[in-house]
Amino acid sequence: MKQADLVIIGGSAAGVEATIVASRHYMIDKIVVIRKERKVLVPCGIPYIFGTLGDAEKNIMPDALLGTAELIVDEVTSIDRASQTINTAGGETIGYKRLILGTGSRPVVPPIPGIQLENVFTIPKDIDYLQNLQKVLQGSKELVIIGGGFIGVEFADECRKMGLNVTIVEMLPHCLLLALDEEFCSLAEDKLIEGGIRVITANAVRALHGENRVKSVELSDGEMLNADVIIVAIGVTPVTDLASTAGLEIGAQRGIQVDSYMRTSDPAILAAGDCAETFSFFTKKPSALRLASIATSEARLAAINIFEPRRMNPGAIGVFSTIVGDTAFCAAGLTERAAREAGFDFLTAEASAPDRHPGGMPGATAVKVKLVFERASGKMLGGQASGGTSIGELSNVMASFISGGATAEDVATFQAGTHPALTASPIVYQIVNAAEQVFVKLR
Amino acid sequence: MKQADLVIIGGSAAGVEATIVASRHYMIDKIVVIRKERKVLVPCGIPYIFGTLGDAEKNIMPDALLGTAELIVDEVTSIDRASQTINTAGGETIGYKRLILGTGSRPVVPPIPGIQLENVFTIPKDIDYLQNLQKVLQGSKELVIIGGGFIGVEFADECRKMGLNVTIVEMLPHCLLLALDEEFCSLAEDKLIEGGIRVITANAVRALHGENRVKSVELSDGEMLNADVIIVAIGVTPVTDLASTAGLEIGAQRGIQVDSYMRTSDPAILAAGDCAETFSFFTKKPSALRLASIATSEARLAAINIFEPRRMNPGAIGVFSTIVGDTAFCAAGLTERAAREAGFDFLTAEASAPDRHPGGMPGATAVKVKLVFERASGKMLGGQASGGTSIGELSNVMASFISGGATAEDVATFQAGTHPALTASPIVYQIVNAAEQVFVKLR
Repeated sequence: MKQADLVIIGGSAAGVEATIVASRHYMIDKIVVIRKERKVLVPCGIPYIFGTLGDAEKNIMPDALLGTAELIVDEVTSIDRASQTINTAGGETIGYKRLILGTGSRPVVPPIPGIQLENVFTIPKDIDYLQNLQKVLQGSKELVIIGGGFIGVEFADECRKMGLNVTIVEMLPHCLLLALDEEFCSLAEDKLIEGGIRVITANAVRALHGENRVKSVELSDGEMLNADVIIVAIGVTPVTDLASTAGLEIGAQRGIQVDSYMRTSDPAILAAGDCAETFSFFTKKPSALRLASIATSEARLAAINIFEPRRMNPGAIGVFSTIVGDTAFCAAGLTERAAREAGFDFLTAEASAPDRHPGGMPGATAVKVKLVFERASGKMLGGQASGGTSIGELSNVMASFISGGATAEDVATFQAGTHPALTASPIVYQIVNAAEQVFVKLR
Repeated sequence: MKQADLVIIGGSAAGVEATIVASRHYMIDKIVVIRKERKVLVPCGIPYIFGTLGDAEKNIMPDALLGTAELIVDEVTSIDRASQTINTAGGETIGYKRLILGTGSRPVVPPIPGIQLENVFTIPKDIDYLQNLQKVLQGSKELVIIGGGFIGVEFADECRKMGLNVTIVEMLPHCLLLALDEEFCSLAEDKLIEGGIRVITANAVRALHGENRVKSVELSDGEMLNADVIIVAIGVTPVTDLASTAGLEIGAQRGIQVDSYMRTSDPAILAAGDCAETFSFFTKKPSALRLASIATSEARLAAINIFEPRRMNPGAIGVFSTIVGDTAFCAAGLTERAAREAGFDFLTAEASAPDRHPGGMPGATAVKVKLVFERASGKMLGGQASGGTSIGELSNVMASFISGGATAEDVATFQAGTHPALTASPIVYQIVNAAEQVFVKLR
């Protein structure tokens, strides 16, 4: 029987990160990584296979990231907690001192009539499945995407680049409404429409029709949409089969229950990423957020804490960015709506300015920032922005303020660095100016 | 006699920012801004007039930023502290309850033989002077820039775009050595050289030669360089004439001495920006840093503190970015060299990764990050990076960690947001991975 110090099940964001960090922090003899997939896709890159990269093979996480850890491509069939071993479909039994579960998530398949028809796809992290989807898309004309979250929106943008006629159907009043406030959602929808995508909101899919292959989509309001192919992107659900069969506790959001050190109800087993229960940085309540960035930060914590509790998980902030056409969007922490729903008493403010200075510098793009601060503590609860490519790191400026507990006063007197070709002017730096409006009101 | 609640002397970064922030924070009756310049240049944009914008008129700070404040274009000739009035060359006397000095800095003119020759320029914030410089540059072939700090480097890059043969002469072993560590300086020099600029370092200018007009530059090692035009960019010195004549205390770095609330030795007078004494966030000792971003953050503090001490200045972090060719560079806080010179016991680490993921995403550029942490406290002392346009906001991610007192552990477990088209992958996010190397060593 093979014996390892650490066994990691799963080879996506959480599994890879846990492997890297455990190797860096602990001089342990043997780390074994077991995953089902022969190749692992970069999860956030999946939409970009279709219009930008052109080939799933260009969106692979290199196994070299695993360093000296042993990689086994096999399926784990059970965990024996008493003997601290796992068993695989390939007949292996491997002993572990510590086990990290990074089994990920799978797409939610809604119980819509016709969902089983041919050419109806979800977006699993499965290269063969997605290569087949790409072939089908290449031979199709009419694509309907069910779900206007960021995966749906990114697929819409990319599939439009392939020349397909694309329609998004979103149940909520706006696309991206779980990630952004309405004004940013509206701007994103404008950009989708400018790009030639049809956006249908506040409308659900009642049924899919066709004989073998899907032919049309019937909406709640009775409208029928022609469709050669359907992508369903309405969310994911944690993969916890192994964990629950092994008797590990499952949480309110259906993830594997973990404590603040990412330990499951069995102290020799930790979990991280989409498969693990996540809680909010702000409310400390269970959170449905599932992002590769959360998976990797949970995996870092799991790896740091494998042998002793060393670093507590403060909860998921939720830091997200995307791009629609040429306009990027981001959010860190709570939107105004999320802050209201969580019961916070808060203030918001907005500031806009070009991301270059003077405004005539080449490439200048308008950047709009909106911040949310708690009234009583003055602490930053969230930030959103739209603009150019600087939006990616701008989300991290906001996230670092939030994680550091910065108040409106702190942010209003932040010493922002600036350069004509790279940022807004120091006088109109958007995050500082939005914070200052709140600081004035809080006095 | 005109009477104002607040008089602000100076209309550049500090004066404008103080005006805006004072108006926002205090419902005061009357703010008067007095400046000498008919038009105010965006200070950081000055180099970009020459190759990118093409015209100084495209680099003007709009007076609309001053809102309802009264703008007077005139020169203040004296401050009468006893009567709380100022007098102008135009014959006006204006009373103030509070006075903010934002008189800025002027270029240092080194005592080199020949410095008075025609076609030898410095870079004052003076539109007429710079428009004349532009005309001279347009009729010239050989430009020598004395000083390889960021103004010298930015001018070199821009004047090269105008078709000039450009040589930089820097006394120190590298260009940009006061802002960046050697490895980043070397990369910037490589980019200058690739752009067709000659870079001479560790060599000083002994004399300028010519009859009326400059013709050549004699270096310390005896080499003679042909030159039609010279730009001297070796630094600036605070403009404190008014303040010192009025008996205000002057500090060790020759700026107007201020306390932690930006108040001068006269409590009715505050000062901010290049004219004011600055101290280091890290050592609390006087600092020679002069940046528009520091000027604006000091001006915010001065405006917040005009009537009562409300927000302390934590000292200048120094957050800076620039671009050479297509490669951007930034620094926040202390470089490794500066940390050593300041006597810190510290650890450094570096991490590199593309700023897109997977690496095949269009526009992907290698980003290298270097971080410096204090050993005893684990706190971040500084960060530097090179890469693409994300470097501007990356400097602010680093600055927000520094200002918030984040430790290597905090940064190593930071929840960075990521997107394929906008940032590195969450697994290789450069700031987090550099911090983690230090976190491992600090355990």
